[in-house]
Amino acid sequence: MMKDASPLIIPSYDDVIAAHTRIAPHIHRTPVLTSTYFNELTGAELFFKCENFQKAGAFKVRGASNAVFGLPDDMLEKGVATHSSGNHALSLSYAAGRRGIPCHVVMPRTAPQAKKDAVRGYGGIIRECEPSTTSREAVFAEVQAETGADFVHPYNDPRVIAGQATCSRELMEQVDGLDAVIAPIGGGGMISGTCLTLSNTAPEVKIFAAEPEQADDAYRSFKAGHIIADDAPNTIADGLKVPLKDLTWHFVSNHVTDILTASEDEIIDAMKETWKRMKIVIEASCAVPLATILKNRDVFKGKRVGVIITGGNVDLDTLPWIK
Amino acid sequence: MMKDASPLIIPSYDDVIAAHTRIAPHIHRTPVLTSTYFNELTGAELFFKCENFQKAGAFKVRGASNAVFGLPDDMLEKGVATHSSGNHALSLSYAAGRRGIPCHVVMPRTAPQAKKDAVRGYGGIIRECEPSTTSREAVFAEVQAETGADFVHPYNDPRVIAGQATCSRELMEQVDGLDAVIAPIGGGGMISGTCLTLSNTAPEVKIFAAEPEQADDAYRSFKAGHIIADDAPNTIADGLKVPLKDLTWHFVSNHVTDILTASEDEIIDAMKETWKRMKIVIEASCAVPLATILKNRDVFKGKRVGVIITGGNVDLDTLPWIK
Repeated sequence: MMKDASPLIIPSYDDVIAAHTRIAPHIHRTPVLTSTYFNELTGAELFFKCENFQKAGAFKVRGASNAVFGLPDDMLEKGVATHSSGNHALSLSYAAGRRGIPCHVVMPRTAPQAKKDAVRGYGGIIRECEPSTTSREAVFAEVQAETGADFVHPYNDPRVIAGQATCSRELMEQVDGLDAVIAPIGGGGMISGTCLTLSNTAPEVKIFAAEPEQADDAYRSFKAGHIIADDAPNTIADGLKVPLKDLTWHFVSNHVTDILTASEDEIIDAMKETWKRMKIVIEASCAVPLATILKNRDVFKGKRVGVIITGGNVDLDTLPWIK
Repeated sequence: MMKDASPLIIPSYDDVIAAHTRIAPHIHRTPVLTSTYFNELTGAELFFKCENFQKAGAFKVRGASNAVFGLPDDMLEKGVATHSSGNHALSLSYAAGRRGIPCHVVMPRTAPQAKKDAVRGYGGIIRECEPSTTSREAVFAEVQAETGADFVHPYNDPRVIAGQATCSRELMEQVDGLDAVIAPIGGGGMISGTCLTLSNTAPEVKIFAAEPEQADDAYRSFKAGHIIADDAPNTIADGLKVPLKDLTWHFVSNHVTDILTASEDEIIDAMKETWKRMKIVIEASCAVPLATILKNRDVFKGKRVGVIITGGNVDLDTLPWIK
């Protein structure tokens, strides 16, 4: 049974504290970087929380580790399972490998070989499906039936959201007096975690979500007041193509101040400028917040703003600004 | 008169301490990063001193700032001058801009537009020469005669070496119990600074220099016991094409344990792997140390090794692994 269909279990801030203790041995406390250049350019004070330096290269390892290391003993033999062709698959494989339990990953057979290799490198067991939702769900149901593994959804899971919430918990310890935090939004796992932490510990801090114009389902959902799921959004920010689900919608609709969008060109420019100026490798997805700040300078001017850099897993052979 | 022709003035460790106090307000105390991946791959414990995060994107700002902020009052109006098409030109312009004094830079007219723009962005005044040593020296002599500016050599200058020495001084404060430090070698400024600090504060720490096979003049000089200058070396590590000079040879010949070399392919692989695994943007020049460690694992196995990442100023439009 898919967890999506279960009654809504809203994680609490106590769950975040428990998650942080549970995952601390398995993650990095990532650094916060600043950039004089971007501060001068935007008129804001930006604090970049660098989850690109995180284990497995992305914040997703926080939620995945919380699910894996919180798994009850009688589930260990069966392990965990998920469907993902991105950072969640890597992160769940990494965490399961650290706990020595099986991790089953359903991935489209068309996924890049490098991603398959990386999942296998961490010990993940891949079952391939056709690149369609129907095939993915059918194959995933087979895997679950065969293995009995616990489904860890990439974002619509209270354990995952409590894990992602540890990121802004660290950020608040590392930087004083933030006026706002901004993070990219796809399915809404990171933003939900940010909402969970800030609404409990610093409700005065505004929360902004940043989304590609070409995959602006969260923006349109936010304006409409209910979830609108896109069919097949197309964006360079490939981590942000997935739709909101009930649990993440709960957090977004209750705690997010606004959702801002940026075009593909603006995202690519912000990505390249971050590499050039800050000397860090970041994914297109996490260039979206900076792109929206550059586009909405009046919103952020004079403010102290936390910017979540969500990951750094990039195919270095095909960079979007090199044709 | 070129400072090269002056009697040799060897900077002392007191000069390093004074330099550090002088330049502290103008530079970053850069972080030291580690990588589980590279530690497992090499069998060593590597500590990467990340001068790619330095102001102006490279360690060169240490030496340049020391020269500029140590300039006596009666020289301020005339300012400083140098010839460089690389990070030293950027760094000297940056430092001079912070002190509000003129900085004259002689650059070949064929230098990349991006480099000229960056120097001008920091307020440097460019005088173009033809891309030959003869023209560069003639034009530089003109500039000096016209302006009376103080010549700050990119590396063969005691003020510059004392400034670069602050990098390993920080590294020794940041990491305990190092067995060795390795840095790239071109003209020898960084290595000389490293020798200056370590020979005075931790003479038990071995010092390795890393050089491209295709520009191995320092390696051949070291083996021969006297300076051998190459005519026109060709390497992707473009910061390392310049030859040793008397002052840097003094340090190299007295304090370096060994010089190791790597091929162009090995350098490019190490560069790309560093971007991929550590999510940092580094120049080809500072991938040379890691390339030589990967090639000489027996030398470094079980050792705690400081690796100086010298800079991150890369043309993102032409990456060496993308043809």
